[in-house]
Formats: sequence, C-alpha cells, structure tokens
Amino acid sequence: MDQYFPQVLVIGAGQLARMMIEASTRLGIKVRVLANEKSESAAQISSDNFFGDYNKIEDLISACQNIEVVTFDHEHVPLDLLAQLEKIKVNVRPGIKALACSQNKIHMRETLEKAGISNPDWLATNSISKAQDFFQAHQKQIILKAATGGYDGKGVWEITELNQLNQFFTDPDSQWLLEEKVSFIRELAVQVVRSPSNQVVVYQPVETRQKNGICNEVIAPAPELAEALNIEIQQLGLKVAKELEIVGVFTIEMFQSQDGRILVNELAMRPHNSGHWSIDGAVTSQFENHLRAILDLPLGSPAPISKFTVMANILGGEFLDLYHPYLHCLARDPHLRVHLYGKSVKPGRKVGHVNVSGDDWSALLARARHAADYFTGNITE
Amino acid sequence: MDQYFPQVLVIGAGQLARMMIEASTRLGIKVRVLANEKSESAAQISSDNFFGDYNKIEDLISACQNIEVVTFDHEHVPLDLLAQLEKIKVNVRPGIKALACSQNKIHMRETLEKAGISNPDWLATNSISKAQDFFQAHQKQIILKAATGGYDGKGVWEITELNQLNQFFTDPDSQWLLEEKVSFIRELAVQVVRSPSNQVVVYQPVETRQKNGICNEVIAPAPELAEALNIEIQQLGLKVAKELEIVGVFTIEMFQSQDGRILVNELAMRPHNSGHWSIDGAVTSQFENHLRAILDLPLGSPAPISKFTVMANILGGEFLDLYHPYLHCLARDPHLRVHLYGKSVKPGRKVGHVNVSGDDWSALLARARHAADYFTGNITE
Repeated sequence: MDQYFPQVLVIGAGQLARMMIEASTRLGIKVRVLANEKSESAAQISSDNFFGDYNKIEDLISACQNIEVVTFDHEHVPLDLLAQLEKIKVNVRPGIKALACSQNKIHMRETLEKAGISNPDWLATNSISKAQDFFQAHQKQIILKAATGGYDGKGVWEITELNQLNQFFTDPDSQWLLEEKVSFIRELAVQVVRSPSNQVVVYQPVETRQKNGICNEVIAPAPELAEALNIEIQQLGLKVAKELEIVGVFTIEMFQSQDGRILVNELAMRPHNSGHWSIDGAVTSQFENHLRAILDLPLGSPAPISKFTVMANILGGEFLDLYHPYLHCLARDPHLRVHLYGKSVKPGRKVGHVNVSGDDWSALLARARHAADYFTGNITE
Repeated sequence: MDQYFPQVLVIGAGQLARMMIEASTRLGIKVRVLANEKSESAAQISSDNFFGDYNKIEDLISACQNIEVVTFDHEHVPLDLLAQLEKIKVNVRPGIKALACSQNKIHMRETLEKAGISNPDWLATNSISKAQDFFQAHQKQIILKAATGGYDGKGVWEITELNQLNQFFTDPDSQWLLEEKVSFIRELAVQVVRSPSNQVVVYQPVETRQKNGICNEVIAPAPELAEALNIEIQQLGLKVAKELEIVGVFTIEMFQSQDGRILVNELAMRPHNSGHWSIDGAVTSQFENHLRAILDLPLGSPAPISKFTVMANILGGEFLDLYHPYLHCLARDPHLRVHLYGKSVKPGRKVGHVNVSGDDWSALLARARHAADYFTGNITE
C-alpha cells in the first residue's frame, strides 16, 4: 500500500505537528517530522523523525527525500531557503507568498490593505516623531508591534505614555508597526482552508479569550454572532484565501469593534490554537483538513457536530505531574476530551487543552475552565 | 513529563493496535507495540516497536521492560506465557480468566451457562453419534465450531446434511462445539468496558450485518431496539463483565431471535470491529476507553454524539491503490470519515472502514456502503 500514499514533511515538532500526525494516521498519509530532538512534542510520537536544523538548506534538502509536500508546525523557516526548495520542485504549502505575510506584520498590513480588507488604522515607521504623532492622533491608545519575530503575545506592547516609545526607536534602520488600539466587544477567530484546486471551506467563527496575549479559551461557534457579521467573516476568509493564494489551513484573528466593524488583528498561516475545538467539535478537524488541502484532496465538512464546543488551554503551573489530575478530572466530567502534548511543564507554557461539547456555552466554559485550572494546579478540587 | 505517564505494551500490530495508538496520543499515554515486522499496520505508525514473537517468553519479558500494563491486538497469546508474566508482576489486562473464554469457545459456553446467561442450545462432544443426535434434535440446522483457533468466520461451519459431520469427527481427542442455528431477526453487538476499580460503562447496542461470516456493516445504535431489550443487553454486559472479571473493552455478539430472545453468539475480549463507529460517533471511542480501563483511569462517556452512526468495512478488492479513491469519495461526501489501516490490499482483507453520522440510518448506510464499495473497486462511480 505504501507506494500509493504520499508522504508529508512537517517542519517543526511542536503540538501542531503532533496533532497533524494524529490526523494523518486514519487517512494513511505518512508524515515525517523535521525535529531538533526526540523529546519534542511531535518527535515523541512520530515514527519518522529527521533530526536537523530548519535554518540549514542541506538539512532541509535531506529531510525532503521522498516527500510529496512540505508544511509547517511554525512560521519561522527562512523564506530564501524555502525558495531554494521550490527550485528543486519541492511543493511548499502554504507557499512563500502567504508565509511572507505571517513573518512580517507590516507586509501583512500592506497586503490586506491592497486587497481592500479592513485593518485597524496603522502606520509602519522608523521615525519616533511620526510614531508620536500617531500616538496623539489615537487618543494615546496604541499598540506597537515588532514587524518580525513575534508570537504568542511576544513582540507586542501597549503604549499609553508618550515616553514609552523612546526605548523602541533606537535603531533608524528598524521599522515598527503602530496600530490603533481597537475598542472591541470581543475577539473572534476563524479557520479557513484552501486547496491548490481552489476549493475553500470556512469553519464557523469562534470567540477567543486571551490571557497575557495568548489565546486561552475558545467558544465555538461565537455565541450570538449576528448573521450579517458571520457572512462578512466568511467572505473575508474567502477573500484572504484568494488574494494570498494560501494553501492549507490558515487563521484570521479579528476584533469585533464596539461600532460593529470586523477588523483583522493577525493572520496565522497554519492550524491554530483557536481551531483546536474542531478536533472534537467538527465533522473534520483543522488538522485533517490541513493535510487534505496540502495534498489537494477534496476538503471535509467544517460543520460543528454539537451546538457548542468550548476549548480551554492547559498551561503549565507549579506541578510537573500532569497524569495524576486525570483521576479527578476524568471522574468529575466523563464528557471531557483531554489533549496533552507530551511537553514538560514550565509555568505558563501551553502543555495541552481540553474540549467539551454541549448546548449551553457558559456551562461548558465553566467545565472546561475547571479542568484546565485543575491540571495547572490553580485549584485542587 | 515522561516519568509521570505510564507506558502500555500492545501485543500484536494489527489495526486494533494502530487505533489504540491513535487514541493514546491525545492522552499522552505511551504505547509500545510487540510486532513481527515494520510493515504491520500498527508498527508503521508506532514510535516504539519491539520486534519479536509473542509465542516466546523471552521476547515477551524483554518487551515488558518499563511497561505498566500489557494488553492485546488479538487473542492468540498462549495463556501459560501470560501466567509467567503475571508471576513477575506484569499487569495483564484483560486477565487470563477472560482470555481463556475467548480462546476456547466450549469454555466460553460453560462459563456463560454457569453465570445464568442465555446461550443458544449447545453441546461439546468428541462423539459423532452424539453430534448426529444433536443435529436431528435441531431440525437439521446446526452450527459446528472449532473450540479454538477460529476468528473472522474461520473455524465455523453450517451443517445441513448429516454426512457433513464425518469430516470433523476423525480424531477422538478433539472436542467440537455444536450449537443450534438460531432463527434470528438480526445480529446485535455491544461494547462493554470495565476497569480494575469495577467502574463499568456500556455503549449503545448496535446492529451488525455480516458478509461471509465477517462483521461488515454496523448501525449504531441498533434501530428500533425495544427499550426492554436494550436494558436486557445492558444488564447482560454488566453481568458478563463481573462474572469474567474482564478489564478493558470487550464485545458481546448476540442474536435477536424471532421469539424475542437475546442469545450470546460470541465474546471478544478486546475492542472490536462492531465498535469502530465509536471513533467518530461517541463521546469516547472504544479505543480510548480501553486504554483508560486498563490503566484504571475513570472511564469516558460512551454516549452517541449523533442520532445514528453507520460503519462499513473497506475490504480489499482487485485494485491495490487505496489512495486514488479519495478523490471521488471525499468529494462526493464531505461528511465521510475514512479510516485506512496501512495494510496492503488482498481480496477480502479488511483494509479500512468508513463512518458517517446523521439522522436517517438507511440513508447513512447507503452512503457508507457506496464509499466502501468504491474503495474496494466494486463500483466505479
């Protein structure tokens, strides 16, 4: 059977790669992981690890032997190396055009603006005086972002005092992205999947709740989202997919503003924490649809299978033992779906998540949060 | 994290072991597989294979290093070897008492009878004259079974002519099991899970449809099953679990007779084909609950998440390529859940299954059957 089934290389061995492997098994798709070491989340469970450095072209080329498609656990691979892979006829999905947007936030804003998509008001500059003007023009409420290198809340600062800007504008060669601080009712996210054949499916938009700049809880679908806004978000997803020619799953993080606008906050060119609910709550998970998309297979239904599914992240706390909490959490809630990533516990580190499905989202949120808090060690009963 | 999480050894590397590994990943449970070779279904995707022979005690002991619990992909491991493992304090689950019943069908009938559970009329004998009497007494409609070694319809014969018996009763030392041929409306099956702490959960009984003596299609739950029969089956499950002190998932295959009786046909001391619907159709799959049971973790809800889920086996046909059919099947039915086992195609061999969930079981059955037939190559559109 082997010869008929394609093999995918996933660059990076975090939990996203781990969950891609889970999804690959049922489809018979073979996955190789380019990992640093065996202890990494995906490398632990992978039957085919290539140990190497994604910053080295020779490692990338070696890892690509017999590989049909290359995809990613993260967005940090240098684009010039990916261009070299494409030259030797390796399929890189998502492609360089899409990844360029997620690697550089200024480039993302420019691209979205050109496509006529609503951004918060923004400015890219290396000039502190222009930054100061922008700060004043936005009622002293702005967000400053590093153009590159940020993730999970890192590389993002809220600016509320003029002199805060001084520490950033020290190098005249480095551009910073400034954005209005949007007065939002809530944050939303949506997963969109596009295949090379241009089939696109859009999941239901979800409500995300952040903790220290990290997506921490998700309610799927977003409760009481007006039908017009839902349609607007679906159309936004289709537009971004088309303009950026994205292949695979991508995620749009958005603000729902007080004045009724949907504004793009961030793009992630991969399966995303805000889509983990889909593993237990949708007909086809974001991970399975990602594999189907990059292999140009027909996509699966993104329809929810419950009225609501709520996801809560398990963050590392004081306790290193994540196994012992099973006794309490699983007994307390037989409907709880626990996903642990095999990662060692460090305070604040994402080490797993829980999903729970049902009809009443606020009751589900309480149950998911209880379990997550118990695993973290914030509560003991 | 590793040190807190137990490791399970699965003896055998077929698709049941493969699906246990899938279920283990999300829980962070580590699984080692005792396999013959890397090409086997579970060995392909396992990150920890021990290659050896389950008939050799030295291989079993070596494979058990750092193992918390031993469990099974199949029921063929010699019981005396398992007894030796238990002597050196290895947890074997299910235990020898349960496995003895599934390895010897005469022993199974005796055990069920002692427990007061309804069997079809049966006789264990090495005497052809007693067999002939049994044949006449049951209107020349009986089933003859080899006491040991049968599976998937092998070792089972329908006897409709007296002289058919001659070919079997040639060795006075070998006992055969004779059973009345039950006039049944349909065949049913149920998965039951018991943990060492004596927690038991029972899945909804399902209707199974056989093809050449192999479970081939499953409708979950069994349509229009009278509530009284449902309760009778649930109680039967609890009774068998208790009497045989089974740990893990086991399966009871039953006849629903024309005169309204529920009669036990077979017991399988493991996850079973008739429970594959639970991967996509229940809150907790039979594979996850098996792992939770053998580790004495609290069990998960067996509740269905759709009104109906229908499963159809994909059997090998003429075509060796199981990948190409994805293009047609996945495009035709975006709700289809396909599970392929990585096995090379041989005619009639189980190489995968499909699940599909919804409200109308007969429409679901048509969709599942279409997909299975297309993979097999029985139909081309």
